[in-house]
Amino acid sequence: MSGRVTHEMEIGSGPSSRRHTQPSSHIHKVERPPQQNLLTEFQTVIKETFFHDEPLKAFQGQKSHTRFFLVLKAIFPILEWARSYNLEKFRGDLIAGLTIASLCVPQDIAYAKLANLDPQYGLYSSFVPPLIYAFMGSSRDIAIGPVAVVSLLIGTMAQNEIDPKKNALAYRRLVFTATFFAGVTQFALGFFRLGFLIDFLSHAAIVGFMAGAAITIGLQQLKGLLGITNFTKKTDIISVMHSVFGTVHHGWNWQTIVIGLSFLAFLLITKYIAKKYSKLFWVSAIAPLTSVIIATFCVYITRADKEGVAIVQYIKKGINPSSAHEIYWTGDLLLKGFKIGVVAGLIALTEAIAIGRTFAAVKDYNVDGNKEMVAMGTMNIVGSMTSCYVATGSFSRSAVNFMAGCNTAVANIVMSCVVLLTLELITPLFKYTPNAVLASIIIAAVVPLVDIPAAILLWKIDKFDFLACMGAFFGVVFKSVEIGLLIAVAISFAKILLQVTRPRTAVLGRLPGTSVYRNVEQYPNATTVSGILIIRVDSAIYFSNSNYIKERILRWLSNEEEDLKINGRPRIKYLIIEMSPVTDIDTSGIHSFEELHKTLQNRDVKLVLANPGAIVTEKLHASEFTKKTGEDMIFLTVADAIEMLSPRIKELP
Amino acid sequence: MSGRVTHEMEIGSGPSSRRHTQPSSHIHKVERPPQQNLLTEFQTVIKETFFHDEPLKAFQGQKSHTRFFLVLKAIFPILEWARSYNLEKFRGDLIAGLTIASLCVPQDIAYAKLANLDPQYGLYSSFVPPLIYAFMGSSRDIAIGPVAVVSLLIGTMAQNEIDPKKNALAYRRLVFTATFFAGVTQFALGFFRLGFLIDFLSHAAIVGFMAGAAITIGLQQLKGLLGITNFTKKTDIISVMHSVFGTVHHGWNWQTIVIGLSFLAFLLITKYIAKKYSKLFWVSAIAPLTSVIIATFCVYITRADKEGVAIVQYIKKGINPSSAHEIYWTGDLLLKGFKIGVVAGLIALTEAIAIGRTFAAVKDYNVDGNKEMVAMGTMNIVGSMTSCYVATGSFSRSAVNFMAGCNTAVANIVMSCVVLLTLELITPLFKYTPNAVLASIIIAAVVPLVDIPAAILLWKIDKFDFLACMGAFFGVVFKSVEIGLLIAVAISFAKILLQVTRPRTAVLGRLPGTSVYRNVEQYPNATTVSGILIIRVDSAIYFSNSNYIKERILRWLSNEEEDLKINGRPRIKYLIIEMSPVTDIDTSGIHSFEELHKTLQNRDVKLVLANPGAIVTEKLHASEFTKKTGEDMIFLTVADAIEMLSPRIKELP
Repeated sequence: MSGRVTHEMEIGSGPSSRRHTQPSSHIHKVERPPQQNLLTEFQTVIKETFFHDEPLKAFQGQKSHTRFFLVLKAIFPILEWARSYNLEKFRGDLIAGLTIASLCVPQDIAYAKLANLDPQYGLYSSFVPPLIYAFMGSSRDIAIGPVAVVSLLIGTMAQNEIDPKKNALAYRRLVFTATFFAGVTQFALGFFRLGFLIDFLSHAAIVGFMAGAAITIGLQQLKGLLGITNFTKKTDIISVMHSVFGTVHHGWNWQTIVIGLSFLAFLLITKYIAKKYSKLFWVSAIAPLTSVIIATFCVYITRADKEGVAIVQYIKKGINPSSAHEIYWTGDLLLKGFKIGVVAGLIALTEAIAIGRTFAAVKDYNVDGNKEMVAMGTMNIVGSMTSCYVATGSFSRSAVNFMAGCNTAVANIVMSCVVLLTLELITPLFKYTPNAVLASIIIAAVVPLVDIPAAILLWKIDKFDFLACMGAFFGVVFKSVEIGLLIAVAISFAKILLQVTRPRTAVLGRLPGTSVYRNVEQYPNATTVSGILIIRVDSAIYFSNSNYIKERILRWLSNEEEDLKINGRPRIKYLIIEMSPVTDIDTSGIHSFEELHKTLQNRDVKLVLANPGAIVTEKLHASEFTKKTGEDMIFLTVADAIEMLSPRIKELP
Repeated sequence: MSGRVTHEMEIGSGPSSRRHTQPSSHIHKVERPPQQNLLTEFQTVIKETFFHDEPLKAFQGQKSHTRFFLVLKAIFPILEWARSYNLEKFRGDLIAGLTIASLCVPQDIAYAKLANLDPQYGLYSSFVPPLIYAFMGSSRDIAIGPVAVVSLLIGTMAQNEIDPKKNALAYRRLVFTATFFAGVTQFALGFFRLGFLIDFLSHAAIVGFMAGAAITIGLQQLKGLLGITNFTKKTDIISVMHSVFGTVHHGWNWQTIVIGLSFLAFLLITKYIAKKYSKLFWVSAIAPLTSVIIATFCVYITRADKEGVAIVQYIKKGINPSSAHEIYWTGDLLLKGFKIGVVAGLIALTEAIAIGRTFAAVKDYNVDGNKEMVAMGTMNIVGSMTSCYVATGSFSRSAVNFMAGCNTAVANIVMSCVVLLTLELITPLFKYTPNAVLASIIIAAVVPLVDIPAAILLWKIDKFDFLACMGAFFGVVFKSVEIGLLIAVAISFAKILLQVTRPRTAVLGRLPGTSVYRNVEQYPNATTVSGILIIRVDSAIYFSNSNYIKERILRWLSNEEEDLKINGRPRIKYLIIEMSPVTDIDTSGIHSFEELHKTLQNRDVKLVLANPGAIVTEKLHASEFTKKTGEDMIFLTVADAIEMLSPRIKELP
């Protein structure tokens, strides 16, 4: 029996091995693991599901007053890093803060229009939330404020309920209500450690959703860019195109078009330059403010507003007024605000968490998803009471922040101070700012959201992901933002269902010159063993797939036996199931295995298991399935099983 | 370098090996698999999802008229087996058919009452459906007819819409409508090959649901058993108990109680005997009919009906009248019928498929789930037009059928003929049958549905399954059948979500004396390799878990490094991820791996992959992730990786 030497030869041959002698048998047994206490088992599941990041580890074994400070530090990370803060760090933060402030002021005014709010509400939302985030957030690079997609989302969902022009106060109250519930949703997800739920919006779905939202936002800007007065309230491409071309002969204003297109060209060129020479990132960062200043000056000089160029007119001076009394605490609009808030809160969170993770990976620090959600939630709850609408992390401003050399969240505080000064001092200067330049700022800001290379990569890597991406994209563009989201989530779920109902199985063969068994389709030179069929099951065996797996295994067997019959070779006597990827099995799975065993018995084929994991082994014993197959039919590796069984093949009929 | 000998020693040592010589390197490369055509890829997914059983294989390469006969045979399996049918087989089928007929006649009358229908409708449902099933079904052992749980389900759901006493015709019409849509649902699931959807009702959930339904049914029978006249319409245990004990002083009828309890005792004793001595199965099979005959005779002699013993009174003579015109084709009741039909159809299907599979595994023949659904659907559609309500496979009668030695579906035809004779000739004889004996027949029939050993097994094997089981059970008992179902499905889905969001990871160590790497928690004697951390990820990496996996891996690393620091041992220089169980990765997964790679780079740890599968390898290449890690950092096995890397450990700082 030549196979017997295999492992013995290996003794002492490994790089870090110690010499072992095993006189009687070299075949390792798969032993039944020590039985777990029910409570321990339950605790493990709870821990891995909700507390896998061991959030309480730091508190263990500490005195109670130390613990109190640790809790404070956990809630307000600023207490942690403020102690080591110094002037050098502040220099970086100051420059970064000023840069993002110059970017955010014109964007805020523009985005507020997207949410159908007066311009000052955009500025309000860049004042209070960043301050709160600076104390509670754990990301060092994120720049907080209103963003285009969330503004659009709130704008379209809220105007479906209340007309913002006819009933501005009620509309604004609804927006604050939505902001409040967005904050509550975010806070609750973080507090109850349900942050993983946002992972269900897959990367692919977000790529499609963002691109669709960008197109939608861009199309909405045609109103400002072309100076159209009668514009549809719908966001789908067909209605918008209808609005645009229906007004071509009487609704367009050439002066507006000139302003809009020239500044759009300017902004896009600076964007291109910044992309090409990353050191010149500040060119595109200050371009919007420059555009606003130049455009405002031109309009003021030429009094183009008298020629029909729409201008901002009036921004209320002064900091955020209280709005706690404006939130709907009762009635039908409470429910509507709640619905809008949950959707907007989740989308805002998805964006912020993605940004936080990206920069944390680059600089290698840790962003705690659940803690971030609590911070975001708090800032939006407070925001809803101080006349802000939903704020979150902006990708473009965060990238500028990062490149401008920010070190900590102090950059957000600097930005917040600049916004404060803007509100207190210079809002009257925006009076003659033409809406067209705001439209061009928005368009330039959302262009990078249409991430075509990312879509191409999706296509290359995973067709199903591409489908989800396209579904979200076309849903948003042709129908509405909500429909696009719904499609994306549905396709993502379909993928999960497919995964859990139709796991893969593979026939294994031995790689020549090794004792390694691999998928014969992936490694065509792998050879099968006469009289033995080896099948690997690539998934946990649960009720959702147990029957499929059973039938699939039997079908592999039947096909193999047909082949063997045609070639006149001996029949299959052992069916080895490689269980390494089978991480768990439930009662339906055990049930299916019992049926499989029964069927195989009828066909005179022996069922052999290789390398079941701890949990599976435990369950196979608990269900007494091992007694049916025989304990000796469970091996540590396929190689062990083959070695033991192949000499017996010839003895069997 | 002692490790180099490992595989070379193995050459020629395997049981079925051929001698290979590999002069340059013995480390196998994980090569990029040949790229798949998009169409092929798409076809593979569709095939594995919907046609994994290769239903069209038999038709390939046949002439068109042969193909026609094959299609006919596929639709009517009777054409297949009828040719080899002989007298000997008929003998078995005749005995089995007569046995199940004696069991089904009294059950049918009783179950019809459970569905709030007149007794003859139960008999109708045992006449037409079994005939149709015999021609179209592929199970040889199943016995078709009304069953207790589905009768209860229809009875409670339909009486929520229409009062069966006040408006018997409308109620009956609703039941036929529900039956029609139950059939349509079943047919559609089979025809569109969506049969796998019923697998989502897990075995555990069914155990709980059935037990709950059995208790509910049993409680309902207290009405008949105790002779209570004013009985609640609700099915939850609290309402029923209230009804029962509220009437204890004036509503109970002692003669009824005597009849009910004595026959219940008789039936349970025969059941016990049959269970103990399986050869005496016929004792319990004919017990219900015997009970009915004796009880009817006793009541007739003593005229106990005048003492308040409720009797059947009247069963309409003659075979099924047409009911096609009674189905609601329009209006509100169409929708309600549809809803009831879908639920009842799915439950009926679940029961029938489970029975079919169980007996098919025992006798080793193949039951095609999708074909079965088409057969069941057809029989219920036809049934709904011939005054039947939803029929399905009955577990108790199928078991009797099997034990009585049935060979083919002819047993169902025999039973059907006996029911025909009953309808035509002897229905008047049931006039004096007391309702109490029917109640005791139902109770005796549902007792085995409370499968306590199965629940104990669930507890032993899988706590989560036990939870689903108990959820379904208590939902049914304390609330209603639908709520119980809903709870069971929700818990089952929660389990799937848990599986796809929180997959397991494990640190691997080398089993002494082998080159096999296994979970150090399962095999405590496995030893880790200095400077290298090996982690196995136990799931496909998808958007739903990619971030968790990344964080979990980093946490393993941090914990390990803390330990090493305490012990003063060298830091981790290589992180090997064992990818064998990673059957697929999507773009979110790739994204997470890129972040992981970036973080590891910052910590000066090299990322190494072992044994990625074909699909994963392809995607790693497509996304150019392999370029980032370096192609040489992907190995066929962990052993290979260790062998190559451990000599380098010392060279690194």
